[in-house]
Amino acid sequence: MRLDFFFVFLDNVWFSFTFNLDLFLLCCIISSLSLLYCISKAGDDYTVEINKKIAGKVISMIFAMFAFSLLCAKIIGELLKLNDDPKVSGVYLHLPPASLTSRVINTLYPEKDVDCITDMNMGRLVQGNLSRGFVPPLAGAVLSLLQKHDASLEGKTVLLVGEGPLKLALHCLIERNGMFVQSSHSNSNSLQSQVMHADALVLLGAESMEIPSTWVRPGAAIIRCESILKSVISGLGYLTAAYRAQNVVQSCSRWLQEQQYRPWHLHTLKLLPLNPVPSDIEISRAQTPKPIDQLAAEIGLLPEELEPYGRSKAKVRLSLLDRLHSQPDGKYILVAGITPTPLGEGKSTVTIGLVQAMSAHLKLNSFACLRQPSQGPTFGVKGGAAGGGYAQVIPMEEFNLHLTGDIHAITAANNLVAAAIDARMLHEATQSDKALFNRLVPSVNGVRKFSPIQISRLQGLGIHKTDPASLTPQEVSAFARLDLDPSKITWHRVVDTNDRFLRKITVGQASTEKGQTRETGFDIAVASEIMAILALSDNLGDMRGRLGRMVVGTSRSGKPVTAEDLGVSGAVAVLMKDAIKPTLMQTLEGTPVFVHAGPFANIAHGNSSVLADKLALKLVGQDGFVVTEAGFGADIGMEKFFNIKCRASGLKPNVVVLVATVRALKMHGGGPNVSAGAPLPREYIDENLSLVARGCRSNLRKQIQIAKLFGVPVVVALNAFRTDTPAEIDLVCQIAKECGASDAVSCQHWSQGGRGCLELALAVKEAARQPTNFQFLYNTEMPIVEKIRTIAQKVYGADDIEVSPEVQRKIDYYNHQGYGSLPICMAKTHLSLSHMPDKKGAPTGFVLPIRDIRASVGAGFIYPLVGTMSTMPGLPTRPCFYDIDIDPVTEDIIGLF
Amino acid sequence: MRLDFFFVFLDNVWFSFTFNLDLFLLCCIISSLSLLYCISKAGDDYTVEINKKIAGKVISMIFAMFAFSLLCAKIIGELLKLNDDPKVSGVYLHLPPASLTSRVINTLYPEKDVDCITDMNMGRLVQGNLSRGFVPPLAGAVLSLLQKHDASLEGKTVLLVGEGPLKLALHCLIERNGMFVQSSHSNSNSLQSQVMHADALVLLGAESMEIPSTWVRPGAAIIRCESILKSVISGLGYLTAAYRAQNVVQSCSRWLQEQQYRPWHLHTLKLLPLNPVPSDIEISRAQTPKPIDQLAAEIGLLPEELEPYGRSKAKVRLSLLDRLHSQPDGKYILVAGITPTPLGEGKSTVTIGLVQAMSAHLKLNSFACLRQPSQGPTFGVKGGAAGGGYAQVIPMEEFNLHLTGDIHAITAANNLVAAAIDARMLHEATQSDKALFNRLVPSVNGVRKFSPIQISRLQGLGIHKTDPASLTPQEVSAFARLDLDPSKITWHRVVDTNDRFLRKITVGQASTEKGQTRETGFDIAVASEIMAILALSDNLGDMRGRLGRMVVGTSRSGKPVTAEDLGVSGAVAVLMKDAIKPTLMQTLEGTPVFVHAGPFANIAHGNSSVLADKLALKLVGQDGFVVTEAGFGADIGMEKFFNIKCRASGLKPNVVVLVATVRALKMHGGGPNVSAGAPLPREYIDENLSLVARGCRSNLRKQIQIAKLFGVPVVVALNAFRTDTPAEIDLVCQIAKECGASDAVSCQHWSQGGRGCLELALAVKEAARQPTNFQFLYNTEMPIVEKIRTIAQKVYGADDIEVSPEVQRKIDYYNHQGYGSLPICMAKTHLSLSHMPDKKGAPTGFVLPIRDIRASVGAGFIYPLVGTMSTMPGLPTRPCFYDIDIDPVTEDIIGLF
Repeated sequence: MRLDFFFVFLDNVWFSFTFNLDLFLLCCIISSLSLLYCISKAGDDYTVEINKKIAGKVISMIFAMFAFSLLCAKIIGELLKLNDDPKVSGVYLHLPPASLTSRVINTLYPEKDVDCITDMNMGRLVQGNLSRGFVPPLAGAVLSLLQKHDASLEGKTVLLVGEGPLKLALHCLIERNGMFVQSSHSNSNSLQSQVMHADALVLLGAESMEIPSTWVRPGAAIIRCESILKSVISGLGYLTAAYRAQNVVQSCSRWLQEQQYRPWHLHTLKLLPLNPVPSDIEISRAQTPKPIDQLAAEIGLLPEELEPYGRSKAKVRLSLLDRLHSQPDGKYILVAGITPTPLGEGKSTVTIGLVQAMSAHLKLNSFACLRQPSQGPTFGVKGGAAGGGYAQVIPMEEFNLHLTGDIHAITAANNLVAAAIDARMLHEATQSDKALFNRLVPSVNGVRKFSPIQISRLQGLGIHKTDPASLTPQEVSAFARLDLDPSKITWHRVVDTNDRFLRKITVGQASTEKGQTRETGFDIAVASEIMAILALSDNLGDMRGRLGRMVVGTSRSGKPVTAEDLGVSGAVAVLMKDAIKPTLMQTLEGTPVFVHAGPFANIAHGNSSVLADKLALKLVGQDGFVVTEAGFGADIGMEKFFNIKCRASGLKPNVVVLVATVRALKMHGGGPNVSAGAPLPREYIDENLSLVARGCRSNLRKQIQIAKLFGVPVVVALNAFRTDTPAEIDLVCQIAKECGASDAVSCQHWSQGGRGCLELALAVKEAARQPTNFQFLYNTEMPIVEKIRTIAQKVYGADDIEVSPEVQRKIDYYNHQGYGSLPICMAKTHLSLSHMPDKKGAPTGFVLPIRDIRASVGAGFIYPLVGTMSTMPGLPTRPCFYDIDIDPVTEDIIGLF
Repeated sequence: MRLDFFFVFLDNVWFSFTFNLDLFLLCCIISSLSLLYCISKAGDDYTVEINKKIAGKVISMIFAMFAFSLLCAKIIGELLKLNDDPKVSGVYLHLPPASLTSRVINTLYPEKDVDCITDMNMGRLVQGNLSRGFVPPLAGAVLSLLQKHDASLEGKTVLLVGEGPLKLALHCLIERNGMFVQSSHSNSNSLQSQVMHADALVLLGAESMEIPSTWVRPGAAIIRCESILKSVISGLGYLTAAYRAQNVVQSCSRWLQEQQYRPWHLHTLKLLPLNPVPSDIEISRAQTPKPIDQLAAEIGLLPEELEPYGRSKAKVRLSLLDRLHSQPDGKYILVAGITPTPLGEGKSTVTIGLVQAMSAHLKLNSFACLRQPSQGPTFGVKGGAAGGGYAQVIPMEEFNLHLTGDIHAITAANNLVAAAIDARMLHEATQSDKALFNRLVPSVNGVRKFSPIQISRLQGLGIHKTDPASLTPQEVSAFARLDLDPSKITWHRVVDTNDRFLRKITVGQASTEKGQTRETGFDIAVASEIMAILALSDNLGDMRGRLGRMVVGTSRSGKPVTAEDLGVSGAVAVLMKDAIKPTLMQTLEGTPVFVHAGPFANIAHGNSSVLADKLALKLVGQDGFVVTEAGFGADIGMEKFFNIKCRASGLKPNVVVLVATVRALKMHGGGPNVSAGAPLPREYIDENLSLVARGCRSNLRKQIQIAKLFGVPVVVALNAFRTDTPAEIDLVCQIAKECGASDAVSCQHWSQGGRGCLELALAVKEAARQPTNFQFLYNTEMPIVEKIRTIAQKVYGADDIEVSPEVQRKIDYYNHQGYGSLPICMAKTHLSLSHMPDKKGAPTGFVLPIRDIRASVGAGFIYPLVGTMSTMPGLPTRPCFYDIDIDPVTEDIIGLF
């Protein structure tokens, strides 16, 4: 291990050297310089350089320190910074005794207290708990001298004369090293007899102590421990400094050790499942979540990487990726589903049950990465997204409501862009080029200057000038007028409420807007392109770039107008600066979960964020598992996961878990319609093996084949319901394996938690050992139409696609604008492999009609529309908010699922 | 002090007794019962009751404990709960040695470790840091026996024979009590000589140790410390138990002590003001805020009362009010202003500068309570609300952006109500009474039931039934149809963006809404009635009640329809459950600030929250100061603060600080117009004493008189600018005092921070000593018109008011609905004492026209409109978002003010 040594001072003047010197020699230097802090960090090179000039300055700083006596507050302030600095491994407080108050000393983190002066480390020493504390350097030096004495002192008696904490430290250390300890003091009347019996003498505070040499037994060792200043220049002082440096090395090693992969020691939460299974919120409330900082520490996060939001949620900083960049990733597991019934088949519960099984029962490091749900449906039609039954993220109300404000940030950012569009159109409509330009580039104290974002627009226009005065009238006009075509604004406003009356509205009807009315609409917040960008961004800079590229409409001359052109993309990035950090929560069994981003699964790609997956893959380490979920059925969510999300992230999945239910399989096998609210037909309650078999051999088989197209092994997870019979379950598992699944098992996580998912966890662990041969379905350089055709034929089983002239015209436009090599994000119903929701099983012989096509240039995909996609849900006559309330005394939420 | 003793066990079986027994006797009982945890809490009574039966059960539980060996995780889980339980003062781990691992022991909070077994407490003992740790009970018992020895042992020698941490503990304790300590072990060959010289002998682990009695000096004390089990039944054991109980009492006393008022020991942040003063964000970024949990601890918050949001913001739980309910309040200071120029006169900076001066320089406990600003203007026209210069709340970008999501929660809650209104009108328009009723009260598993909120509506309708089947058709119709009149919906949607195109819109134009279009509009989020409610609520139940009373419109039959009628008020309260907790931040000098609520100052009352003020008044304690700010000039903000906010809260202010600037005074004295963006006329830059004098004798005098109308002393704070001359400043201070101000001083906080506000702080401290005679301006039982007239005449100086027949009709309607006794919240321009913005000084001889009148029934006020109030700002041609960006590497925000 290599170390850089840093010496940091109050005024932040510092010098450093990396060394391959003898440790002892180095420590002499440290001591003789009388440094305030002795700090080490893991470094990258061996170059040795000592800047003598700065060293001189440093020493004068120290004298300044001695001159002031009331610096406690300042010292504490500096210590707090050093505590939090991961580059600092040890702090040595070389201060006048008056400044070394108990408050100053105990401000220091014990893990950086290499001098062992904090109460905590002194206690650890006394209790023999040295795996975490340190041996005080002076005590270490004395012990070392005793051990190097000519004759072995093992079993012999060492007499300590003097007082104070150091005596006690030595007392236990010497005793623990096999010698007998006696203690006395200089005024004792039995001192002489004790000295005469002792094989070694240690004199503490030895300046004033005289032991007549006649008392001392011949051959006995005498060690004098003088004051710090004196010992610095004596041999014991050098040895002490060497031990201090050794403690710094030890502290640094411990820190590095903690950065390595290791199985977590999770304090899991015990589940005692009830029968019948209570409501989701009752189960959630019955479990007390661990404090989130405790969970974070258990999975190896540093305190400075955590931003708590209350007691059960925390954002995790992206700096983690730098710290762990050399750590190998864990296994990457995708949970997808067969084509579902409108009731949903439980992908989220399987995802959560699976990590509960892995982390809490099999003691494998594992992380679930989930999407943040829209708040709208929480108050509309029943159904949370935190899982359900005994496989949930807790507290579920935090998960389903504001969480850490990411969707609110997206709403604010999205609507700022919208306000900027309309305001800009109004200002352009009512001002001359010159007036507009003068306002856009105002004279401040007589100086006109472009802001950086305006220079970025100028460059986009091909104008490479930076002086506003130098622009020609044509350039002024080109710069100042976005000239947006009101009929071609594609940007919508958003709210995170199911507000159907905002689907189509007319804005600008107040007299102040001077008749500039326009038809537009609101989408639900998660349909915002900014949400898709959040989910696909790799880092802050990447997100900032994508936000700038968002196209909000077209100019009258047919040019795309971007958020960067509006000058608003920097502000949007500022609004999104916290949203980019994934939110850490926990399952009912106390295992970690990331919740981050939740783009619409139809008009966007429906997957949680790239960043959450990447952070989790580092945190679980090479033997761990990250389980992430794709929206809708495998034909949509999984296809987009592979072709869009994995393409953006560069990550390669190891296993696909394909969730199926007997109910959905019966539907695909020809069972009657299933719809929300209506009672289930008998076929779904009684055993019906033939329906099951037909469902398996159509939809399940096809979805397995789709996963295998991408070269990834498939494990089928049958989410078992109470009405499923053993014969039905066996049949599904048998056919699934015949169709190419690596394994197929049933899961009871809903009623049993992780314990009900053990078999699945073992099957996934086994499948993850198989080599994968992951490949994309298409090359992005293929023409847009060919990419769509490939998906339609290979994934959906269509004969061909049908492209209208209008769609073709738009495709030509996209090619012209340079968007031709973006991947494809199909907007298709999830209720059938085809575009016809009522065609169940695995339909064939159809032609997929491409009704429209749009681009999310910032997010980075083209989305062809195969049907009408609603981007704003509505409220039913009796929304579930009727049941929701809060108990004003206990603060408990009532009636939420 | 009285104490309850609780004995808590793993299965939560417990028994308790309060006692007036001898402490010693009690402890014998504790010890002989072999209890797991010995826990005390401050109790309310003296009754003594020991339930022997439960005691029997308890003992059997302990034996069960001994049977299991792998309970560490469970023990740790229980300890974590006990750590967090404020009712638990001490935990005594009576466990088999195998369970007492270092991890178990050190899980316990040292402040509850009454047995002194944690590393931390052992370290404190060794270092002599006993103000926080504990004396181990056995060591305490031994010491006490030594001290009670026949002959005083002071200056005599005590010999400790044995090993282990206890020996070291005794070693330092005895030494510190004036005896000399020698230490030996049973195998030492000098043992005999040591024993012969010792005046007292302490034998540790004494079972196996035999000291021949001939060795012992006559009269020497011998104390044998046997194993825990043996000592329980010996005298030393009882004494040990007594000391343990004493430690519990001590722990409890320390906790109680911390609940008492005490001057804070704030770690203040040093300011080194630069000249010229840098931009706000540069100043903010140059200062590193303290970790928010550190600040919270410094001001006496318990960890469980804090919900951190990142590292520099935290919400504070309202349970604080219960804990400190018996603590006297601090002094309550209101910062108001004279009638301002459109540039603002710096009330926020004075508020912040004043607390910086008080807390950081005068070491007085003080808190600033500020409004949360709307995010809209942050990206529109330049200007933050976190203060400015060297009087700021930091980090200012956190303050000005999402903060802790309260405004986002209000947006979500407000828009849920809006969505519910339109959806309900659509469903009522398209369904029969019966269909509507069946959907509203659906049959679930064959049972129809009203939800509690529906029963609340039924009762409002005078229908006292709970069985849905028992309703008559008339009752069904009355219940199911709100019958909202689309033209009389008063509820608007909101966004927190300056989006002028949403001022007037038409919604419902999609075909799915079946032609139910309607004209409506969006307001800026802070104009939502929910914001006003948040600011006036006293607790969660109060807020829940107000949210239910919000009137959203009128039925066709003229009845008000409330959020409760819509069934949405419970869900709205759930969305607001975190928003009700104030957010703690800090000033540039590290002093505490609450940021909470920010209702519009024209259509609402423009004051920060009642709850933040109440929490702060408890936290500063009786000698402390809470400085809160009222929006706009004193004629509006202060009047509403007194008549609305203080009426709602029951709090009585002690001092009004009236902020003035020479600039605004010159304007009132007859100076030319001041407007944003335009250069200041010469009059405002050069000395002009006559303008200043005229301004003081008009507007300043009037505003002082207004404050005095309410019986509160006034201190005038002249916010000094660089252009102000000493003669101008002196003149203002002199006239202010002539006009009745208790004092008048100038402040330089903007350029100097708290140091620049010292004079003001001292003046406020002095003024707060004066007795106040606080009174409301009007009795709420007065007729609405009379209340308005009182404000117009006494505050604004109007001759009379003018009420149109339309307004009178609405007043009659409000009286009819029972809103007649609500206080009045005038919606008037802040740019003049009159309703005419260009009438500066102190206009007289005008009649105030009441153009319209509205009611915020949930918030609890009637607001007459004296002019047109814009509730949605717009974006200028070059909004300040052009300058705003984020550095993707450092994550620093650029260009924000």
